[in-house]
Amino acid sequence: MTQNTVTADWIAVDWGTSNMRAWAMSASGTVLAEATSDQGMGKLTKDGFEPALLSAVGDWINGPTTVIACGMVGSRQGWIEAPYVATPCGTLPDGLVEAPTLHTDLTVYVIPGIKQTNPADVMRGEETQISGFLARNPGWDGVICLPGTHTKWVHISADEVVSFQTFMTGELFATIANETVLRHSIAADGWDDAAFSAGLDMGISRPERLAARLFSLRANGLLNDMPGNAARAQLSGLLIGTELAAAKPYWLGQQIAVIGDSGLSKLYITALATQAAPAMQVNAQAITLAGLTTAYKRMKG
Amino acid sequence: MTQNTVTADWIAVDWGTSNMRAWAMSASGTVLAEATSDQGMGKLTKDGFEPALLSAVGDWINGPTTVIACGMVGSRQGWIEAPYVATPCGTLPDGLVEAPTLHTDLTVYVIPGIKQTNPADVMRGEETQISGFLARNPGWDGVICLPGTHTKWVHISADEVVSFQTFMTGELFATIANETVLRHSIAADGWDDAAFSAGLDMGISRPERLAARLFSLRANGLLNDMPGNAARAQLSGLLIGTELAAAKPYWLGQQIAVIGDSGLSKLYITALATQAAPAMQVNAQAITLAGLTTAYKRMKG
Repeated sequence: MTQNTVTADWIAVDWGTSNMRAWAMSASGTVLAEATSDQGMGKLTKDGFEPALLSAVGDWINGPTTVIACGMVGSRQGWIEAPYVATPCGTLPDGLVEAPTLHTDLTVYVIPGIKQTNPADVMRGEETQISGFLARNPGWDGVICLPGTHTKWVHISADEVVSFQTFMTGELFATIANETVLRHSIAADGWDDAAFSAGLDMGISRPERLAARLFSLRANGLLNDMPGNAARAQLSGLLIGTELAAAKPYWLGQQIAVIGDSGLSKLYITALATQAAPAMQVNAQAITLAGLTTAYKRMKG
Repeated sequence: MTQNTVTADWIAVDWGTSNMRAWAMSASGTVLAEATSDQGMGKLTKDGFEPALLSAVGDWINGPTTVIACGMVGSRQGWIEAPYVATPCGTLPDGLVEAPTLHTDLTVYVIPGIKQTNPADVMRGEETQISGFLARNPGWDGVICLPGTHTKWVHISADEVVSFQTFMTGELFATIANETVLRHSIAADGWDDAAFSAGLDMGISRPERLAARLFSLRANGLLNDMPGNAARAQLSGLLIGTELAAAKPYWLGQQIAVIGDSGLSKLYITALATQAAPAMQVNAQAITLAGLTTAYKRMKG
């Protein structure tokens, strides 16, 4: 018989489209162990979630165990749909939804996402990060930027999500770099700070020219041997600059926090700095766990 | 022995990345026959062009025959590179380049493309269409829009290409509709005029918001059951509107001609009409042939 090396008091789970990350937690909120899995929501059918979870964290379960999960696990294609809560609302909206389980010791709660009616917008997972940030920064008012595939700008006031706007910037970067004619001009990696800055300036000052600047990257490759790493950095600058031009009503004159992958967050902070808008950088993974912990504590009352 | 049903005096060829189209021409410029092939430049290596051409038009060759070709056949990856001629230049730039052939009766000339140094830009094939248009409209000054995968706006004055700008609008439409999360929200076909108009207004008035409007299409699908044909039309409107906002220095107060696929041209003409900018529609295929004919006549002196 195998001895559990870790017994979780409860388990925190960040379950996105591509991956799942779980933490074995003590009652006092200490991390006892960590696990990751590539069994993201996108790869699973409804009855595949429980086996995927148990395969990753089953060893931590020794008696009745509560799981708190956030992210796409609560989407219509997820384990169970946790319907969006409408803005304005608390950053960790009420309405945890219990997912069906076969394992008798397992109780799984999914955190709902947030929706905005007009303009139509949705988030799932980010509400938990925002909640974690506010748990660590009580009473904070301002704007949180969460860069990623679908970058969010979120206006926070009096502990509520007042409004938010999503930009498809990250997905546009990946798709344009990999699926268009620019794939011949853009390196798979590498960087050039000056090219990023030039793209940023173009994007902020003339955002309407995006589709023309994109073709210029191709033409500069053909005519001027623009290096692939410079084209890559300039594309990133163009897209982030265009986003900043549109998100100005969000960030102008506001206290700003950037929560995300460290490399991408730095690009946004650099970009905001050129507009005299200082921003604080927040580690995404730690703040997600803080948000899941807040949800667990609230559920326990 | 097979009898040729058609003997071409010369052959006109429009050879793009995806397809090839050829016309058997009489000395006086009458079309005797037409052929198409899916052997585009993108599928051929250098020594594959002559066999591909002969497979499509070999029956028309009965004695020494001249071929005039335009398009990507003259790119670096084509039959032979016909180096770009720099703006400002004639619409049919000098410098036909002869391609190597094995068939002793075959003489093939490729029309060079046009490049612009700053901002860096290139065209290949469009110069022939522009030339055909000017042959039919002598002395015409104004702006020609050539919508497509890479839409061109070209400023024509005194029979010269003064400047031009390429927008990756068509390729963005296809890539965003097929390769991003919007593929779940956008129908493969279908249309909605009101949604196109709404997208157009958004694109023209707030072009910087493109990446946010894209995600709104997804959110409107999730929250408001926006139909896929409406999402498709709105995406088209958004992208064309954003392009018009940037191309305003080209079209504002100018005589405008639109050369392209008939459906796409109509969208551009509708869009320009909302800006009180009337434009004439020109059939792309007929005008390409007119341009190839102009090049042939000029070569014959």
